[in-house]
Amino acid sequence: MDFTVTLDAQGNLHLGPRVVPLPTSISENARRFLATPFPSPPQPEITDKEGWKKVVAAADRMFERAVDHWLTSLPVTVETRAIAGVSVHQATPHTIKYPERAHFRIHGGAWVFMGGKYAKAEAAMTAAEMDCVTFGLDYRMPPDHPYPAALDDGVAVWREVIKQYDPRKIAMSGASAGGNLSAALTLRVRDEGLPMPGAIGLLTPATDMTRASDTFQTNAGIDTVLRPGGNVVALYADGHDLTDPYLSPLFGDFTKGFPPTFLQSGTRDLLLSDTVRLHRALLRAGVPAELHVWEAMPHGGFGAIFGSAAPEDTEMSEALVAFVDRVLR
Amino acid sequence: MDFTVTLDAQGNLHLGPRVVPLPTSISENARRFLATPFPSPPQPEITDKEGWKKVVAAADRMFERAVDHWLTSLPVTVETRAIAGVSVHQATPHTIKYPERAHFRIHGGAWVFMGGKYAKAEAAMTAAEMDCVTFGLDYRMPPDHPYPAALDDGVAVWREVIKQYDPRKIAMSGASAGGNLSAALTLRVRDEGLPMPGAIGLLTPATDMTRASDTFQTNAGIDTVLRPGGNVVALYADGHDLTDPYLSPLFGDFTKGFPPTFLQSGTRDLLLSDTVRLHRALLRAGVPAELHVWEAMPHGGFGAIFGSAAPEDTEMSEALVAFVDRVLR
Repeated sequence: MDFTVTLDAQGNLHLGPRVVPLPTSISENARRFLATPFPSPPQPEITDKEGWKKVVAAADRMFERAVDHWLTSLPVTVETRAIAGVSVHQATPHTIKYPERAHFRIHGGAWVFMGGKYAKAEAAMTAAEMDCVTFGLDYRMPPDHPYPAALDDGVAVWREVIKQYDPRKIAMSGASAGGNLSAALTLRVRDEGLPMPGAIGLLTPATDMTRASDTFQTNAGIDTVLRPGGNVVALYADGHDLTDPYLSPLFGDFTKGFPPTFLQSGTRDLLLSDTVRLHRALLRAGVPAELHVWEAMPHGGFGAIFGSAAPEDTEMSEALVAFVDRVLR
Repeated sequence: MDFTVTLDAQGNLHLGPRVVPLPTSISENARRFLATPFPSPPQPEITDKEGWKKVVAAADRMFERAVDHWLTSLPVTVETRAIAGVSVHQATPHTIKYPERAHFRIHGGAWVFMGGKYAKAEAAMTAAEMDCVTFGLDYRMPPDHPYPAALDDGVAVWREVIKQYDPRKIAMSGASAGGNLSAALTLRVRDEGLPMPGAIGLLTPATDMTRASDTFQTNAGIDTVLRPGGNVVALYADGHDLTDPYLSPLFGDFTKGFPPTFLQSGTRDLLLSDTVRLHRALLRAGVPAELHVWEAMPHGGFGAIFGSAAPEDTEMSEALVAFVDRVLR
């Protein structure tokens, strides 16, 4: 090694300056993504509601081109409507392969981004991938609506969706904050005595909001998409106990039942530990759970969220689709 | 973050000096292991055969206490004998739960360490865990016997073992170099037209000897057990092409058949990428493969190889046992 490492008496590692080269073990598209600086939006104080709204609006503009492309090119019709008073993007593929199934999709974006049109486009994409009607939950978000608004919205919509579809034929999924919310919502509907989804997909999910996970340290700076620190968790949690399983699903009691679960991460993902720790917690409780980790992948893939999917991103989507199909069949 | 990160025009990350704290998300035993300096044996020149033999003898002494403890305490009888001219430690549990099964265990140790008495003790442990007769392959090693001696030995013994046991009832496993050899041997026996094992377990396996894997960079220094660099690969490969699948099983053609595979790694493991890349290669070829990654775990676990297993190490062994049982049943 061409840098220094010292282990101190407390077990902390002191690493000298070093260079982490662009990997050669991934696709050209993935390499291009890792070599391109990732936009890092400013994070206003959590009391600065107007500041946050501006940051969110700027992010929406950044995604506009990808979103418009998806919404105009996918063989899917999306209707935005209120279900139980909550905005939901109901996406219907032009040709439905699985009429008896539905997908419940919860968008990501750090609990504050990617609502509205992005959520609509994500519902369209999911419907196209899953070949069934998809309900894209456009949950309320901070700064005006922190926890537990998103989960309240999720429960309300879930109650309605399961009147139309057999819950065992509904898969639920989401990435990042959407993975956090998918796992938390599943715990909540279970605890409220409602039937759970038949399968869930957690893509690079935030599972331990206390940030005790080791890859928050080891992958800091190496994950170029998601940086440690920041105050979105505080903005969302709004003073609630971060160890509450509805905020940190890792601390849920999975022995009381939980659906078969697909978990995805990457070796450069800041949330790799959040993902693998939940995988083990599920297995320990006897829940069927599959872990999928991609080489050198940071949080959220190699560009899929901007509409420029690398082959690895496509493989990731296909793996989730295959899992859902296997479980719901 | 309290350190600097710069992405240069070539996509290389320049990380400033930083501290990676001892994680709080693991067991006390695991924390103690990470806080204890790991012995780093000297690596003589590959032409210095006597130097290597001294290093190996010193390592043997380091393991002596653990090895003696295992060999005297486990409810297993171990007989060392020659099978097809190769030294094999045949371990028989005092009470055999699965008389129709056998386990083929290939010891680890960077292709040069952990032979002899360690391999014998490892066979005993495996037999106790797997509840069946275990054949611990004590393959020839460098400096006197580089590649392909280990695999030649493996093929020769495999030919004999499958005369006694239905190969579909034999699982094969190994850690580190033992994982590399288990995967490579499975490819070799397949290519020679022999039946393959019914299941294999690859614990933190070396799969890409070219060291292109990204965690050779990202986990360098963070994995306190295995360091990048060193010349054991050169010592073992002896000038052969490192992209040969018998040296780097990642490059094997798995569409020609491969047994259901259990893969294990840790988020701090230098071989995390080697492990997840093989997992994906197997899935891509349609081979049933399960990935298991433990939080903050370096190469080889939290002390199991010294006889001081952390709860995470025990969970890891139990997960492999459960997998083998599920597949061979």
